[in-house]
Amino acid sequence: MEFLVRFETRLPDGMSDAERTRLKEAERARARELRADGTLRRLWRVPGRRAVIGLWEAPDATALHDALASLPQWPWLDVTVEPLATHPQEA
Amino acid sequence: MEFLVRFETRLPDGMSDAERTRLKEAERARARELRADGTLRRLWRVPGRRAVIGLWEAPDATALHDALASLPQWPWLDVTVEPLATHPQEA
Amino acid sequence: MEFLVRFETRLPDGMSDAERTRLKEAERARARELRADGTLRRLWRVPGRRAVIGLWEAPDATALHDALASLPQWPWLDVTVEPLATHPQEA
Amino acid sequence: MEFLVRFETRLPDGMSDAERTRLKEAERARARELRADGTLRRLWRVPGRRAVIGLWEAPDATALHDALASLPQWPWLDVTVEPLATHPQEA
Amino acid sequence: MEFLVRFETRLPDGMSDAERTRLKEAERARARELRADGTLRRLWRVPGRRAVIGLWEAPDATALHDALASLPQWPWLDVTVEPLATHPQEA
Amino acid sequence: MEFLVRFETRLPDGMSDAERTRLKEAERARARELRADGTLRRLWRVPGRRAVIGLWEAPDATALHDALASLPQWPWLDVTVEPLATHPQEA
Amino acid sequence: MEFLVRFETRLPDGMSDAERTRLKEAERARARELRADGTLRRLWRVPGRRAVIGLWEAPDATALHDALASLPQWPWLDVTVEPLATHPQEA
Amino acid sequence: MEFLVRFETRLPDGMSDAERTRLKEAERARARELRADGTLRRLWRVPGRRAVIGLWEAPDATALHDALASLPQWPWLDVTVEPLATHPQEA
Amino acid sequence: MEFLVRFETRLPDGMSDAERTRLKEAERARARELRADGTLRRLWRVPGRRAVIGLWEAPDATALHDALASLPQWPWLDVTVEPLATHPQEA
Amino acid sequence: MEFLVRFETRLPDGMSDAERTRLKEAERARARELRADGTLRRLWRVPGRRAVIGLWEAPDATALHDALASLPQWPWLDVTVEPLATHPQEA
Repeated sequence: MEFLVRFETRLPDGMSDAERTRLKEAERARARELRADGTLRRLWRVPGRRAVIGLWEAPDATALHDALASLPQWPWLDVTVEPLATHPQEA
Repeated sequence: MEFLVRFETRLPDGMSDAERTRLKEAERARARELRADGTLRRLWRVPGRRAVIGLWEAPDATALHDALASLPQWPWLDVTVEPLATHPQEA
Repeated sequence: MEFLVRFETRLPDGMSDAERTRLKEAERARARELRADGTLRRLWRVPGRRAVIGLWEAPDATALHDALASLPQWPWLDVTVEPLATHPQEA
Repeated sequence: MEFLVRFETRLPDGMSDAERTRLKEAERARARELRADGTLRRLWRVPGRRAVIGLWEAPDATALHDALASLPQWPWLDVTVEPLATHPQEA
Repeated sequence: MEFLVRFETRLPDGMSDAERTRLKEAERARARELRADGTLRRLWRVPGRRAVIGLWEAPDATALHDALASLPQWPWLDVTVEPLATHPQEA
Repeated sequence: MEFLVRFETRLPDGMSDAERTRLKEAERARARELRADGTLRRLWRVPGRRAVIGLWEAPDATALHDALASLPQWPWLDVTVEPLATHPQEA
Repeated sequence: MEFLVRFETRLPDGMSDAERTRLKEAERARARELRADGTLRRLWRVPGRRAVIGLWEAPDATALHDALASLPQWPWLDVTVEPLATHPQEA
Repeated sequence: MEFLVRFETRLPDGMSDAERTRLKEAERARARELRADGTLRRLWRVPGRRAVIGLWEAPDATALHDALASLPQWPWLDVTVEPLATHPQEA
Repeated sequence: MEFLVRFETRLPDGMSDAERTRLKEAERARARELRADGTLRRLWRVPGRRAVIGLWEAPDATALHDALASLPQWPWLDVTVEPLATHPQEA
Repeated sequence: MEFLVRFETRLPDGMSDAERTRLKEAERARARELRADGTLRRLWRVPGRRAVIGLWEAPDATALHDALASLPQWPWLDVTVEPLATHPQEA
């Protein structure tokens, strides 16, 4: 099942540059794994914002939650999830 | 997978009483079937409104959409769907 | 450039079944053309609603507007458009 | 009487890991008691968020408030409560 | 248990004056009964609007819904209900 | 004239327990005075929140503002005021 | 006491021009009376809309409601009222 | 002074095609005049909607209102106006 | 041209009492000047809040911005501006 | 393609005056470059706020994002982007 997932990243003002860099790299590595196993299908940037929209595939909302919570930046993400149904013209 | 589904019924002002009664009965019959097959698990009324909140179970959002669209009143329902993930304490 | 486009269909109560069927078929035919020329890339249903989310590709917002306005149901669609930027991980 | 209760957890950035762990365990223990006495009936996770939706049973809103305020994390929860009426088909 | 109930009355444009008068009188009579049995405790007007705010008392949300749905104007009321907990200073 | 007043209390994270206790007691004492002189008529808790709804009586909005601003917790309250008109059935 | 009152006029599509003219004149005449007795103090137009913002003076919200409901267009006005307190610098 | 003006056109369902065409032409003619006299400076389409965003120049909000109300489609436009201040970098 | 201006004051928690007093006095002095030159015409308090509504007069939005930004508390004000058009009945 | 871009600047309370001045100058210099290369076409101030509205031109949303993210204040800007389509009367 597919989900449209939007997240806004809000790292705290006090976080050091080193920690930001470390987090960003860990995030990228985890994202690569989620792409490799077919969970994360597409990713777009919302222009002008520290926000992304992603197309995710997971058996259900529980598996999706686990994938999202596995992202190193998750504690600082504001995430909204929208379930998608297949459109008859896509079948 | 479970979904929390909220709907507000908005039958048009001009609909005859006979048609309303017929629709309501057809709705009840279809709801009974959806309960029997385990799709519709619980139903509550939003006090004061022509609105209900339901707990639904479906393999995915596509199956849920088909179940909702099979309701005779569907053309006049304003439906919002919220995906639910299993809470670790429920497992 | 890609756009995320959401639309809600609101055909008027008084429209005849014949007109609805005709419109729906014309809509499907036009959608097929827009897919064939690469303008309409993906389409999902918002579960429970007469609404779809689509991923569109167009040179700019003017071309996108023309594509959307070419849909036979356009006079009854409530459309919102969100511009998408390419994510560095997609390049 | 049943209530649909939604809460978002917002622990302050400065809270130590030890305090977070202690709080989480105390929360779990209190939740177990509220389940045991029939106050907390079901719990779901909102996918992607530090948020849960719960189905609660209490004689009235005052008893519900006392149950919610007995949760160790309550000072950091943003709680919204929705009263539920029994649906005739459930009776 | 007490509830704060807000309603906005929206009689359809086409309703005849006779029907409006009849409805209004039936509404007033039913409200008098609900006051007499202690269900409707206080009523205020929202200045400038065809809207009222009421303080209602009912064993639970189901009984409240039945009381509200017994109002002759109910099919044209837009109702919102807010549950109230007793404040310790009131006890 | 009556007013419906809603407030959410937001004491800063860094406030000491001693200060919180002192404030709470001062608040209770001031509330008692406002009840005694007929300004504060009823108080309810919004279940699950650090919020209350009150029914206040004051000659006008200026007098109401002075009463609200006399509360010791006022600097940390988020207050919204709704003017109430007498309903003809109450007269 | 002063009130800031905003209204949007929404005459039904089907209303005849004669009826609109008659209403508008009756409205103007009633507004003149309300100005003469000091109830309506100032009136502004919201640019681009069929909406006005007015500064009204009335002993309380009940008297204000009666003044607003005495306007011939009242059945088609969407009115919102905001109570104003005197600013110390105005005294 | 410049204003950012957004409008959504909502012609009633029952309006004949002839009337729509006549209105549209009259609208275009009036827009040309407003451009010629420097009142209407730029016009954009909101992609996917029957809506436009315009940059207008007028001595004040009263003159702007008169210009907007002179548009033949004005009775069916939902207009919002935002005042603009000159940015120091533009001077 | 007149403007309706609303502001909410949000001084930071950590600001000392001395600084608050100094700011408040500077604010009052500047407000007096703006009244004297006819820029600030009326001021009201929003009951229950640290917020005021003001009626301002300025040649255009640029001059209004300069007047607002000249207030000593401006860095901590959340300001919204609404342009007002003259109502024909006021002329 | 043109975009309407709105941003609100929110520099943190703790930022030193020297850092603010440095940032502001760097921002101005970068803005000048973006104007020179035709990316930033017009800029207005939202009266009363630390906010600007700009008219930007970029080949697509990705190029626009890069231009916006090149602004030295970008980490503290809250940005919203609206795509604009050419209006037929502009061609």
